[in-house]
Amino acid sequence: MEKCEVAILGATGTVGQKFIVLLHNHPFFEVKEVVASDRSADRLYSEACRWKQSIPMPKSVANLRVKDTSDTLESSILFSGLDSSVAGSAEEAYANAGHIVISNSMNHRMDRHVPLVIPEINPDHLELIYRQQYKGAIVTNPNCSTIFATMAIAPLQKEFGVEALVVTTLQAISGAGYPGVPSLDILGNVIPYIGGEEEKIETEPLKILGVLKDDHIEPASIKISAQCNRVPIYDGHTETLSVKLKRKARLEDIRRALDNFYGLPQELQLPSAPEKPILVLDDQDRPQPARDVWLQKGMATLVGRLRECPVLDYRMVILGHNTVRGAAGAAILNAETMVRKGYLKNGNRVPKESNHFGSHRVFKSAILAKN
Amino acid sequence: MEKCEVAILGATGTVGQKFIVLLHNHPFFEVKEVVASDRSADRLYSEACRWKQSIPMPKSVANLRVKDTSDTLESSILFSGLDSSVAGSAEEAYANAGHIVISNSMNHRMDRHVPLVIPEINPDHLELIYRQQYKGAIVTNPNCSTIFATMAIAPLQKEFGVEALVVTTLQAISGAGYPGVPSLDILGNVIPYIGGEEEKIETEPLKILGVLKDDHIEPASIKISAQCNRVPIYDGHTETLSVKLKRKARLEDIRRALDNFYGLPQELQLPSAPEKPILVLDDQDRPQPARDVWLQKGMATLVGRLRECPVLDYRMVILGHNTVRGAAGAAILNAETMVRKGYLKNGNRVPKESNHFGSHRVFKSAILAKN
Amino acid sequence: MEKCEVAILGATGTVGQKFIVLLHNHPFFEVKEVVASDRSADRLYSEACRWKQSIPMPKSVANLRVKDTSDTLESSILFSGLDSSVAGSAEEAYANAGHIVISNSMNHRMDRHVPLVIPEINPDHLELIYRQQYKGAIVTNPNCSTIFATMAIAPLQKEFGVEALVVTTLQAISGAGYPGVPSLDILGNVIPYIGGEEEKIETEPLKILGVLKDDHIEPASIKISAQCNRVPIYDGHTETLSVKLKRKARLEDIRRALDNFYGLPQELQLPSAPEKPILVLDDQDRPQPARDVWLQKGMATLVGRLRECPVLDYRMVILGHNTVRGAAGAAILNAETMVRKGYLKNGNRVPKESNHFGSHRVFKSAILAKN
Amino acid sequence: MEKCEVAILGATGTVGQKFIVLLHNHPFFEVKEVVASDRSADRLYSEACRWKQSIPMPKSVANLRVKDTSDTLESSILFSGLDSSVAGSAEEAYANAGHIVISNSMNHRMDRHVPLVIPEINPDHLELIYRQQYKGAIVTNPNCSTIFATMAIAPLQKEFGVEALVVTTLQAISGAGYPGVPSLDILGNVIPYIGGEEEKIETEPLKILGVLKDDHIEPASIKISAQCNRVPIYDGHTETLSVKLKRKARLEDIRRALDNFYGLPQELQLPSAPEKPILVLDDQDRPQPARDVWLQKGMATLVGRLRECPVLDYRMVILGHNTVRGAAGAAILNAETMVRKGYLKNGNRVPKESNHFGSHRVFKSAILAKN
Repeated sequence: MEKCEVAILGATGTVGQKFIVLLHNHPFFEVKEVVASDRSADRLYSEACRWKQSIPMPKSVANLRVKDTSDTLESSILFSGLDSSVAGSAEEAYANAGHIVISNSMNHRMDRHVPLVIPEINPDHLELIYRQQYKGAIVTNPNCSTIFATMAIAPLQKEFGVEALVVTTLQAISGAGYPGVPSLDILGNVIPYIGGEEEKIETEPLKILGVLKDDHIEPASIKISAQCNRVPIYDGHTETLSVKLKRKARLEDIRRALDNFYGLPQELQLPSAPEKPILVLDDQDRPQPARDVWLQKGMATLVGRLRECPVLDYRMVILGHNTVRGAAGAAILNAETMVRKGYLKNGNRVPKESNHFGSHRVFKSAILAKN
Repeated sequence: MEKCEVAILGATGTVGQKFIVLLHNHPFFEVKEVVASDRSADRLYSEACRWKQSIPMPKSVANLRVKDTSDTLESSILFSGLDSSVAGSAEEAYANAGHIVISNSMNHRMDRHVPLVIPEINPDHLELIYRQQYKGAIVTNPNCSTIFATMAIAPLQKEFGVEALVVTTLQAISGAGYPGVPSLDILGNVIPYIGGEEEKIETEPLKILGVLKDDHIEPASIKISAQCNRVPIYDGHTETLSVKLKRKARLEDIRRALDNFYGLPQELQLPSAPEKPILVLDDQDRPQPARDVWLQKGMATLVGRLRECPVLDYRMVILGHNTVRGAAGAAILNAETMVRKGYLKNGNRVPKESNHFGSHRVFKSAILAKN
Repeated sequence: MEKCEVAILGATGTVGQKFIVLLHNHPFFEVKEVVASDRSADRLYSEACRWKQSIPMPKSVANLRVKDTSDTLESSILFSGLDSSVAGSAEEAYANAGHIVISNSMNHRMDRHVPLVIPEINPDHLELIYRQQYKGAIVTNPNCSTIFATMAIAPLQKEFGVEALVVTTLQAISGAGYPGVPSLDILGNVIPYIGGEEEKIETEPLKILGVLKDDHIEPASIKISAQCNRVPIYDGHTETLSVKLKRKARLEDIRRALDNFYGLPQELQLPSAPEKPILVLDDQDRPQPARDVWLQKGMATLVGRLRECPVLDYRMVILGHNTVRGAAGAAILNAETMVRKGYLKNGNRVPKESNHFGSHRVFKSAILAKN
Repeated sequence: MEKCEVAILGATGTVGQKFIVLLHNHPFFEVKEVVASDRSADRLYSEACRWKQSIPMPKSVANLRVKDTSDTLESSILFSGLDSSVAGSAEEAYANAGHIVISNSMNHRMDRHVPLVIPEINPDHLELIYRQQYKGAIVTNPNCSTIFATMAIAPLQKEFGVEALVVTTLQAISGAGYPGVPSLDILGNVIPYIGGEEEKIETEPLKILGVLKDDHIEPASIKISAQCNRVPIYDGHTETLSVKLKRKARLEDIRRALDNFYGLPQELQLPSAPEKPILVLDDQDRPQPARDVWLQKGMATLVGRLRECPVLDYRMVILGHNTVRGAAGAAILNAETMVRKGYLKNGNRVPKESNHFGSHRVFKSAILAKN
């Protein structure tokens, strides 16, 4: 298979850099264009970027000349790590111009026709792209804390129904980008507030776990309460969950549902797919960000301390790598899914009628088949 | 008033050291004896102790010779910071010998006749000491996470009734004593487990908020779920709370109940009493351990982010100084209460019949008077 | 004595806030004006400032309206925590307008007629203000790492002569102001570079330890090598020193010289003066920033691990509070010295001829008298 | 080549665990025996060991039964991560019994007949094993701070001669083993003292850079001053160096000498050898432990900020991975060298006369050939 050339939007930022790291030697995609703000435009990427990754900057990217958002792009697929202050209109403009925008930005996540996708859970929502008025399309992945909480309750929602969820997060500093959180604010401290974060965790899962109805998603009906904290951790969001189910379930059923869960990325053995989307750990003091965050290449949701809750029904501690599965890796897995399910051919959107693999029906069966 | 001479049990440990710091120049008490394990016995305190406090060791204590638990003590009042591995039998032996043991240890907290006291909430429980078979008495204060959660729900329990509480804690390393948590385990990490902690938070508040019935406490009926985490913070336990009330209440009523709350220590203007036991902060990103933990000399419970909860009724973030109000300071406030309420005279237990101030009835009226 | 009303330049920044904390209830000075950038101008200080101090903002300051640098100021004495990007011309303008600018900024430190003062060491350099062409004057204190290294070698320079100094610093994040160092750069990391810092440490001590010759300072002749590192510490700069002396000295002489050192602030018992400017600690693992930085109100230079050096002559580890003695506190001690030595009267510069206390000769004698 | 079966001494400790991680899938060696203290003996390794590594425990090792030091071992080669409290006599006993002990412990490093080896620098010192009275042999690698400082000055010593070295270290907590440094001592703190560390840095390089004379090493004549600090960093020792040379050299000569340096492990392309033993970085704020410590698999010495020193001649900042190149990895590279140079055959010591490759002469030529 010939590699599909892609562009990175917001390429000098934290998410953009992570795209470049994760797409290095990727079997499907090759980074050919990097886009950043005016300030960086026309400079070499190696000069424009304050590289903050732990592996050296790939040479092929280092020598790319940075484009700005007014430049015409040649790539069909654009991975967007644009800041939310500009992503809104920029992504629309690219989609109008025919590009497929695979976005990690928050701006269009809740748009009626934009799929908000975790491919293990709701790959069928990708059908929504045919309802978009854009010549191209916009596809989004959830917020870095949403994704792990949603992954953890998805198997429970499917088997037992979830009525309510109480979440407290302990979030890493890398979730705030660069320069992000000043060290004077977080060294030896907890900040019990992250702007906009709780709202995302309380709404995005409802769309992801919702049902595709023609041209929109009927949201799931789950009450969610989120309390978000920043802690002095580099990578890895820890979350404590208490879940109330609609139907009674025994602890072992819960454990089995989590442990057996898998989805389309595992079936298709996509390059970025974790072998298991959910890893249940039995040690009583795990998961821990400093020790476990890189399990399964940073693409799994780790679940520990699964036990009964005296107030709701069950509780657990979950952990995920916020800049891998929680951001760039999530977008890349979305793109891989779209390629392998026939939504994209040579990087272009395949017309609905000819997408035999991508039809709603096929997806549904694939998902049902798992159970 | 002549100062009462006291002893510190477990004097070389973290809690013991904090007792010494907080009792330095105390108007009621003067440290005259320090007790530690055999290993330290007979050495000067200054030599036996690896002092870890930020103020220099008081000279009057530095020159005391360390006694061991087999030595006879002269002090009537003993402040105990003994490790739970030895506190059980040691404190009983001291109480049998006629001493008043004001203990921060967990061992006797749930004993039928031992009061577990937060003097703003349940000073009347001190009457239980007259039911103890000891010649002296044991009085305890709660666990360092329990105390703040209990303080925060006490006003709600009184006014509206509390049905359920979901707590997640982010606890400081100083709560684990010395040497405590190895740096390799906690630097840049979260440990989502603290042995025995969740059980304490789920049971101790029920006794504290319970009702004194003759010779025991009828526990309050509240469902509590606690999930405890250790975070790389030096001092200050942060906790997120979601509370379900028995009776409906408006947000402003909740706020008022918290803000107006006070108790006996405030009425009596005890030396260690915070001016307000609960401080409600309005900044959206407070309380923060690194910034707020020393407000009111480390003796207050700080409440922030008070708002409605989509799952239960209300939620908030609370913070307290775990080694001050959460440990040594709590014990000292208990002792101050006992002195001023007539339970102790010249450091000795006052017989029930002659304790005109300490009677159940008087306490009740004092408490009711507050509302 | 009536208090002198003062202004704070750069009042919303980190140094400005520290000025406000340290001048709260000061016996000589009272903050009556706060000056900040245009952005903050005309707002209440409490609204314009993101207060980052651990004590609450003094109410008297909270209600001041922020002025900008184009406003005329009423205060004679201005404490400057201005950013170096604006301090240069702004401080000159104020001095030209007749104000006494007590500056912590680097811009004018090396100006020929501007004294760079540590009052324990070179208070006689204050005479330079009479050589300034300003109607008012500019007086500066050294960089936050310079001051501790200079304090530690000053007694050795005086008694034995210092030929060379090799310094490595481990500097706290609070030295970089706010927002300062991004947490992504420093959490669990060392940054072996601080822009401009090494140059300051290698040159400023030469002026401070230099000799006043009419209208300028003849610099001391000491070779200094500095290597500066940022470490994830909140407050407190640690420095390892190796010193080569001009004359032979025994270890006990070195220790005595350090331990006995004192200067004018101690003689005059100035409000901000540490009882001892240099504290020699004997514990082999001290000084430590988290434990010792607040000794003597954060105004002392702590010296530990004093011992022979196999390469140069002697070595030691020193520590000081970088935002207290290393910044705002240093400036305040300069101002206190000027008031008490008669340079300032009612906040105004006293003409040279009438300054009987401040004359070069008097200072010299005071300094000589110490030995 | 058939793999050589080896044992790990002190297998449950931090160094022991690192041996297991680094020997996983090693082309020369296979871990077949694990030895630990009595407490762990007879239990499965997976049960006896509190695994603290970031990769999962290799299954082949997990199922080994732990032996104690009184058990007879079958492996010829023993990698020792024994604690210094027991390593002294235990390693001697093993060597007497005919084993080749490749030790990371400090106990025998300075023994007259025990080679202290960095194979890029002094592989010829391995000849000393033929002077040992043991049936087997003991070979050691240097202390975790020594190795990087010695590596950095080795090229300068060879080309220009080194007269003096002033070092300050900023050492990671992982250097202290587990449980090691209590978090209460190091979180947000610097500890300016590490027991025994400075002495090692001041003496070990002299032996390593010394000359093999028949049955002993004539130590190099270099004055070294070390000041060691513990900082709150997980992995990676940073060191600032100032070097005085015997012969004049230009900055570019220094740089070239460092950059071009290589040795036997690079010539032989040993499995654990870094491609370049010394990496010179040009960015002014590098090397940084959190970003650079894993370069070259953690086996390189990183050099940055190379520049002139106003006091000595040149200075630089160096960094290395203290538990990889600074401990287990160093020992493994020693063993690889011995295998490939013919000191060991089937895990047994090859008699001196038949070791055609390992002879002193051959080594010398190999080393000379490099220049």
